[in-house]
Amino acid sequence: MAEMTNDKYPILSHIDSPADLRKLPVSDLPEVCADIRRFLIDSLSVNPGHFASGMGAVEITVALHYVFNTPYDRIVWDVGHQAYGHKLLTGRRDKFFTNRKLNGLSGFPNPSESEYDTFSAGHASNSISAALGMAISSVLKKENPRRNVVAVIGDASISGGLAFEGINNAANVKNNLLIVLNDNDMSIDHNVGSMNSYLAHLTTSRRYNAFRYKLYHLLRKMHLIDDRSKGVWVRFGNALKTLFSGQQNIFEGLNIRYFGPFDGHDVGKLVSVLNDIKDMEGPRILHICTKKGKGFAPAEEDPVTWHAPGKFDPVTGERQKDAPGPHPPKFQDVFGETITELARSNDKIIGITAAMPSGTSMSVMQKEMPDRVFDVGISEGHAVTFAGGLAKEGWQPFCAIYSSFLQRGYDHIIHDVAIQHLPVTFCIDRAGLVGEDGVTHHGCFDLAYLRTVPGMTIASPSNEMMLRNLMFTAQKRNDGPFAIRYPRGSGHNIDWRQPMTEMEIGKGRKLCAGKDVALITIGPIAYDAQQAIAKVAEQGVSVAHYDMIFLKPVDEKILEEVANSGCPIVTVEDASIIGGLGSAVVEWLNDHNYNRKVVRLGIPDNFVAQGTVAELRHLCGFDTDAIADILLKVAKK
Amino acid sequence: MAEMTNDKYPILSHIDSPADLRKLPVSDLPEVCADIRRFLIDSLSVNPGHFASGMGAVEITVALHYVFNTPYDRIVWDVGHQAYGHKLLTGRRDKFFTNRKLNGLSGFPNPSESEYDTFSAGHASNSISAALGMAISSVLKKENPRRNVVAVIGDASISGGLAFEGINNAANVKNNLLIVLNDNDMSIDHNVGSMNSYLAHLTTSRRYNAFRYKLYHLLRKMHLIDDRSKGVWVRFGNALKTLFSGQQNIFEGLNIRYFGPFDGHDVGKLVSVLNDIKDMEGPRILHICTKKGKGFAPAEEDPVTWHAPGKFDPVTGERQKDAPGPHPPKFQDVFGETITELARSNDKIIGITAAMPSGTSMSVMQKEMPDRVFDVGISEGHAVTFAGGLAKEGWQPFCAIYSSFLQRGYDHIIHDVAIQHLPVTFCIDRAGLVGEDGVTHHGCFDLAYLRTVPGMTIASPSNEMMLRNLMFTAQKRNDGPFAIRYPRGSGHNIDWRQPMTEMEIGKGRKLCAGKDVALITIGPIAYDAQQAIAKVAEQGVSVAHYDMIFLKPVDEKILEEVANSGCPIVTVEDASIIGGLGSAVVEWLNDHNYNRKVVRLGIPDNFVAQGTVAELRHLCGFDTDAIADILLKVAKK
Repeated sequence: MAEMTNDKYPILSHIDSPADLRKLPVSDLPEVCADIRRFLIDSLSVNPGHFASGMGAVEITVALHYVFNTPYDRIVWDVGHQAYGHKLLTGRRDKFFTNRKLNGLSGFPNPSESEYDTFSAGHASNSISAALGMAISSVLKKENPRRNVVAVIGDASISGGLAFEGINNAANVKNNLLIVLNDNDMSIDHNVGSMNSYLAHLTTSRRYNAFRYKLYHLLRKMHLIDDRSKGVWVRFGNALKTLFSGQQNIFEGLNIRYFGPFDGHDVGKLVSVLNDIKDMEGPRILHICTKKGKGFAPAEEDPVTWHAPGKFDPVTGERQKDAPGPHPPKFQDVFGETITELARSNDKIIGITAAMPSGTSMSVMQKEMPDRVFDVGISEGHAVTFAGGLAKEGWQPFCAIYSSFLQRGYDHIIHDVAIQHLPVTFCIDRAGLVGEDGVTHHGCFDLAYLRTVPGMTIASPSNEMMLRNLMFTAQKRNDGPFAIRYPRGSGHNIDWRQPMTEMEIGKGRKLCAGKDVALITIGPIAYDAQQAIAKVAEQGVSVAHYDMIFLKPVDEKILEEVANSGCPIVTVEDASIIGGLGSAVVEWLNDHNYNRKVVRLGIPDNFVAQGTVAELRHLCGFDTDAIADILLKVAKK
Repeated sequence: MAEMTNDKYPILSHIDSPADLRKLPVSDLPEVCADIRRFLIDSLSVNPGHFASGMGAVEITVALHYVFNTPYDRIVWDVGHQAYGHKLLTGRRDKFFTNRKLNGLSGFPNPSESEYDTFSAGHASNSISAALGMAISSVLKKENPRRNVVAVIGDASISGGLAFEGINNAANVKNNLLIVLNDNDMSIDHNVGSMNSYLAHLTTSRRYNAFRYKLYHLLRKMHLIDDRSKGVWVRFGNALKTLFSGQQNIFEGLNIRYFGPFDGHDVGKLVSVLNDIKDMEGPRILHICTKKGKGFAPAEEDPVTWHAPGKFDPVTGERQKDAPGPHPPKFQDVFGETITELARSNDKIIGITAAMPSGTSMSVMQKEMPDRVFDVGISEGHAVTFAGGLAKEGWQPFCAIYSSFLQRGYDHIIHDVAIQHLPVTFCIDRAGLVGEDGVTHHGCFDLAYLRTVPGMTIASPSNEMMLRNLMFTAQKRNDGPFAIRYPRGSGHNIDWRQPMTEMEIGKGRKLCAGKDVALITIGPIAYDAQQAIAKVAEQGVSVAHYDMIFLKPVDEKILEEVANSGCPIVTVEDASIIGGLGSAVVEWLNDHNYNRKVVRLGIPDNFVAQGTVAELRHLCGFDTDAIADILLKVAKK
């Protein structure tokens, strides 16, 4: 990154903290924004990350740090894709080239990284609740000078149930929370839900709001209103607006003062508005409209693709292409094409995604049969319960949700699906270590939290064809919930479009025989295990390899065979070491009176940061080399 | 129940299904309601259950079954305390004396019990999402005659995030869902949140609504409007209302047609309103106002107490008193008094409850220091994340939440507390088998789903004094989340108000020595285990008993001692057999190269229905007799 010289970012290069920013005149801020955008383009074109969200949030980031006294004042970012500019302004410009890398910066706000990152971000909709805690803290402590707390939340995140719970409580207790609604009419994909339509409707009254705001400034200049009365005045304006337009203001209905919408790319205006409302009492919402990808034409035109575009040419916007030749598909693509194929012949299948049609590839089915796919927005709990309602009426819903996000639907899986033994298929995407998205996104816990649910079938395919077969099998049955977990990214098979066959529930397979060690795996980690087996074979160690496929019900014949073989036993899973495959094997052996030691490999009992999947598997001790080492070690004993 | 003769319930006794109800003239319905109320009073006075909610919902229950063609039309009850009248009308009158009993009727709607119970109810706020699934099902199937789907939800439940997610989606997709908002301005305790204030505000416009509704009937009679235009008309009325009152209608803002509020105890009016709106297209909300406990003066006056009053005199309302003399307290009372005591000297302690101040006894602290207790309403996710925000600012929040409801906060525990290692104390109430509330309310899974969370300390006190000491210990530390689980109901100690001492984290205790069996327990089941030990001692079997206290970190010294003793090992826990104490012991022995068999007792891997705790422990095989049997069996081997 030699080109990132001071010349290229003449103002930004002198901002080492928000205090430096606050020394500048307002008139310099557009230039700061331009510097940040150039920096993001230069940096992210070579070191990929989230792009379009951060580009859209540049002005509000600059304005917030300019107006508020961070880090004394708290900014709580929701999700945090949008917080790259925030990282650049808060002393992390020089480290930004390590973004999302092992031992580098986290791609999300991370309190262990900086005092400016006030709260963990990664799962949507948590900012209001967390910020409300901080705002109430400030009231309880009677902090002087008053400590301001700002939650910055997108229009998709604000439709999550958690955000609503936050708003419902914010309006009810003494606090001075400011919620900035960064409305780009998008999440990762296009938005859904009535809250979204509602915001679009609010936005159309922009002209009225601009007029009202100008009038307010005029009256203030004429000393007809003062600072103390400005809250009353703006509120009165909202009531007036309701009168004239017949438009319902949900936020005002919920007793939150509403301001907006304002142009989120006019940094001077944002500074002025924030100054106007920052010292008002009580919870407030500031609605700003932004454009995802703002300032980089290709991203503005196609913000879905540019959510996380990979490497690209900073001038032309040409995205780096895959190497030529056929490639193994992503598991996501296999899912998307397979559900569509199945849905063609099984008209009971319904697709459900929670704001991730592209990410899960549910978009494939959505495109072909839009009436049978429901994108419920960021609301994993609703996705699961809604699937329960459909299943109760005889449908076969497939819920495709990322493993770590499905944690939000845990109770719903138990209460609204499993207790009623409803045939909902959970296609659990991003299971296991996900790599660069880091600690909030790893899908570590699903095996453990699902295994404890009575009547739940849990499977993980070791390759693309098996994912297809498991999906085929799930829709053939009508017998309680069925979870299929698969990782982010690609497998190893190019020729994966095989005809599908039904699989026997609870039956694993033996991939190879061996006499020195019995190795049990679940999921695509079988491939790495096979490589390890080949490696130790060179040293004369012979390993029997069992692919369990099902965690629940577990294949007792395989476990009997393993137990009776007398070989040392090793389990490997791309999941938390507590409660998953290794635990199931140990429990089964114990309960069936086999006194056999099991070496359990998996994600250890601590939170794992970001890095490549290969790096993280190495760190966690279950990459090919680590598996081989263990195989040699137990074989020698 | 000999007195429940036909004479006493002259109309109800002839209603064996809603079809019978629908044969009656509307003018008979008040008498049906009176019969139901008398039946509920007579029955619940001797066989206790939920009282006040059901009494308040009598008229809407009758009206719904009268107007809608159940079971073809679907009624989805939220929570389901309110559904007793529904059970009486749907063929279960003669079995109602078995309500909440082993092998009897469930105290909540239960699809495995009746085709009229369309969906599992027990955890609040799920009805809209489930009913939306059914309503969309009907559209997809193009059902003819149109199948109506009605969700009946209370004003407390509708403020839960899941309900908001349901509404946000309902307004966005083609469906004819009718949401009946049964607004009694209460949940179990008094309601909180801005949605609640909002509904109160809406209610004040009742006179205007009544006028509007009368005008509508007049115009209809004059043939100035017809059935096709009535939806438009009512909608226009709402817009008019907004114009005149400046009042925001949240539901209309979210694109749901709103009707109400209407008197929820005027059954004739309810029938007429339901007939008016039942065939309208699109999602609608009908807001009715009811009184909890309606028709029984003591319950109307004190609905909190009468939520579930126990046995009472059906005439005077005098509630059955405890036997004279001192009693061991409920664990809830110990919690309530102890947090208050601790908060007096530690001003960092904050109390948080999710709509259960009475149930958890957080009310004790709330009464003494209202500024430091936050009742966040039915929003467990927010409760946890909000606690995270407070903890991040240096407070020590104690979140008291029922075990099965905390499943709603699972992701929040991981993402908003544990990743950031924040010192939030989770006081997990109703852990283990809860008895009569049954399958949706047992707290089976907490040990398993918490043990997998890195950095989580998990403890369970075996008696009241230890609950105090664990709470004392939790607030002395500042070192990540701390979970303390304890059951519903009373322990065995009268003299529990002992001075508190700090406990060593991860250290259990040996309750007695023995040479034949090593018994490991966690939580108050230690008491039952002690009785079993005394029982087998009579037969010459000597048992060493270890009270682990902590599940995580586990006491390795105890496990070493047990492993080295050579005795057979038995574990007992009032929690799911998968993933909890037994699993932790088996895993530890395996990982530390002890080839030792463990007999694991606990809640088996299936859903457990209602009954007394004693009955259910017997069924699950871990009551005193079952423990004794196992001890004898393993000792003999």
